[in-house]
Amino acid sequence: MVTLGELGESAVLARIFPRLPDSDATILGPGDDAAVLRAPDGRFVVTTDTMIHGPDFRFAWSTPHDLGWKAAATNLADVAAMGAVPTALVVAVAAPPDTDVAVLEGLADGLRDACQTLAPGCGVVGGDLAASATFTIAVTAFGDLEGRPPVTRSGAQPGDVLAVSGPLDLAARGLELLFTRAVDETGAPDSARAVALRAEFPAEIEAQLAPSPPLLDGVAAALAGATAMLDVSDGLAIDARRIAAASGVRLDILFAALDGSVSLQGGEAHALLATFPAEAVLPRGFRVIGRVEAGEGVLVDGVPYDERGGWDPYVDGRR
Amino acid sequence: MVTLGELGESAVLARIFPRLPDSDATILGPGDDAAVLRAPDGRFVVTTDTMIHGPDFRFAWSTPHDLGWKAAATNLADVAAMGAVPTALVVAVAAPPDTDVAVLEGLADGLRDACQTLAPGCGVVGGDLAASATFTIAVTAFGDLEGRPPVTRSGAQPGDVLAVSGPLDLAARGLELLFTRAVDETGAPDSARAVALRAEFPAEIEAQLAPSPPLLDGVAAALAGATAMLDVSDGLAIDARRIAAASGVRLDILFAALDGSVSLQGGEAHALLATFPAEAVLPRGFRVIGRVEAGEGVLVDGVPYDERGGWDPYVDGRR
Repeated sequence: MVTLGELGESAVLARIFPRLPDSDATILGPGDDAAVLRAPDGRFVVTTDTMIHGPDFRFAWSTPHDLGWKAAATNLADVAAMGAVPTALVVAVAAPPDTDVAVLEGLADGLRDACQTLAPGCGVVGGDLAASATFTIAVTAFGDLEGRPPVTRSGAQPGDVLAVSGPLDLAARGLELLFTRAVDETGAPDSARAVALRAEFPAEIEAQLAPSPPLLDGVAAALAGATAMLDVSDGLAIDARRIAAASGVRLDILFAALDGSVSLQGGEAHALLATFPAEAVLPRGFRVIGRVEAGEGVLVDGVPYDERGGWDPYVDGRR
Repeated sequence: MVTLGELGESAVLARIFPRLPDSDATILGPGDDAAVLRAPDGRFVVTTDTMIHGPDFRFAWSTPHDLGWKAAATNLADVAAMGAVPTALVVAVAAPPDTDVAVLEGLADGLRDACQTLAPGCGVVGGDLAASATFTIAVTAFGDLEGRPPVTRSGAQPGDVLAVSGPLDLAARGLELLFTRAVDETGAPDSARAVALRAEFPAEIEAQLAPSPPLLDGVAAALAGATAMLDVSDGLAIDARRIAAASGVRLDILFAALDGSVSLQGGEAHALLATFPAEAVLPRGFRVIGRVEAGEGVLVDGVPYDERGGWDPYVDGRR
């Protein structure tokens, strides 16, 4: 093992840079004070999201590759949810000086593999390395709307259908499995049990630790005329309420269209939730789970659904 | 005092959003999965930099307003060093749940005041709030090249002059003062002594805790024909070496043009270091400190300068 402190910043960067994926949007890449990227239609989409050791991940459960993959995937999902094509990332990593450089190499490999698998042509165009007592990954992602208007949360209309692409329950089931079965007798995360659990429940555990959001369905939804869209990050109930509030409409969800109640509450699904005009031909990845009506709030089978649902980093992070 | 954990994410955001400055480049601002920004010439400049409690700042020395100011200023300096006009920031903050919400309010005010003072029209278009054991601020900044090519590190030519805008020594002198005189008997940062020190040495302490880089000189340098430019973040010696290496030239610095040896070694100056053709009319903020010659490396008064200089987050962060 060689630590970041033993190598120093320049040597660490020299080992990481060759692993990072190029972006097709690059005009000027890493190595200067800033990068320069193409924005062909004169606009760009930008979003940022952070992963912190403790509240957001545990090294006992996630490999470095998982972390890079998830940090890329969750940010790219926010770009896709605007109906944009992901083009590039910048990545700031803060790590303790006694961190093995292999952790950053694995993280870089995960960033690369997620970009190449989920959003070909998207790459890492810049970043920052810092020292911190708490391992932290902050990603900012960019996208190209290709001349289209962005698909916001505010365009849903009464009469639209409500549809989703991607599983709503797997990531939450995976988290529940990890918290109940990948811990030791004291309740602390246990890496050997996590490995065994992943072999037994690969879909659930990977949906939680290394998710593959349906990114291409974001553009497909925009082209199909989606009136509103978002990435389901905090649970279907809370995220549906966001579309309802922003659009000034009511969303009625059909419980029979869901895979049980986990689908309403489960966070980190990174499914795409969208509304479409009733006459629209839905992209293949989407399935109808409800409809848009005049009114406000979220109903399930016609009954107001007021359970809080969702996840708050300050209130729920103690778990 | 009200903590982030008591308020929860939504209530915290509701208190912070109204304090943040708007950006003139905004097409779609905060509140959706991503923001949409204007990139009028079909390109945008992007850079990211992180500030971590411990290695990068101490609450005993910096006010929350200082932190917001410095996080904005240092990132905007990297945009200016490309010859671009800063347009927008996204800001990810990770904080312990027991943090007083007033800290985030002060930080937001500092971001706003830095944007309005140093880069009018630039604002905050998005962000992320997370829970962490270590207070962390990750900023990504954007800029508009207004149709010009970026000023990189690689264009310096033999015969050019080497010039700098902004003080090279103040921030390092401020840091030295803080480490020697704003600590208690055990060497721990002491807030009362820092306040007294700031009253006695306002220029040095503010250059370190709330710097005001000469951002407008970045565009002025580009318009005046600068051939290479960067933001002096790690010390003149190390940053001059970066221009020399990228451009394949030698830089000869005149010691008499500096304010002593601190100017060669001192980090965090956020001065703009640029090369210009000999016949260029330098923007008013710049002063000549040397010249560009054929060869490699950095000389001071004709003698190779090989002291390491500069700051490494993993090697030097232990201080």
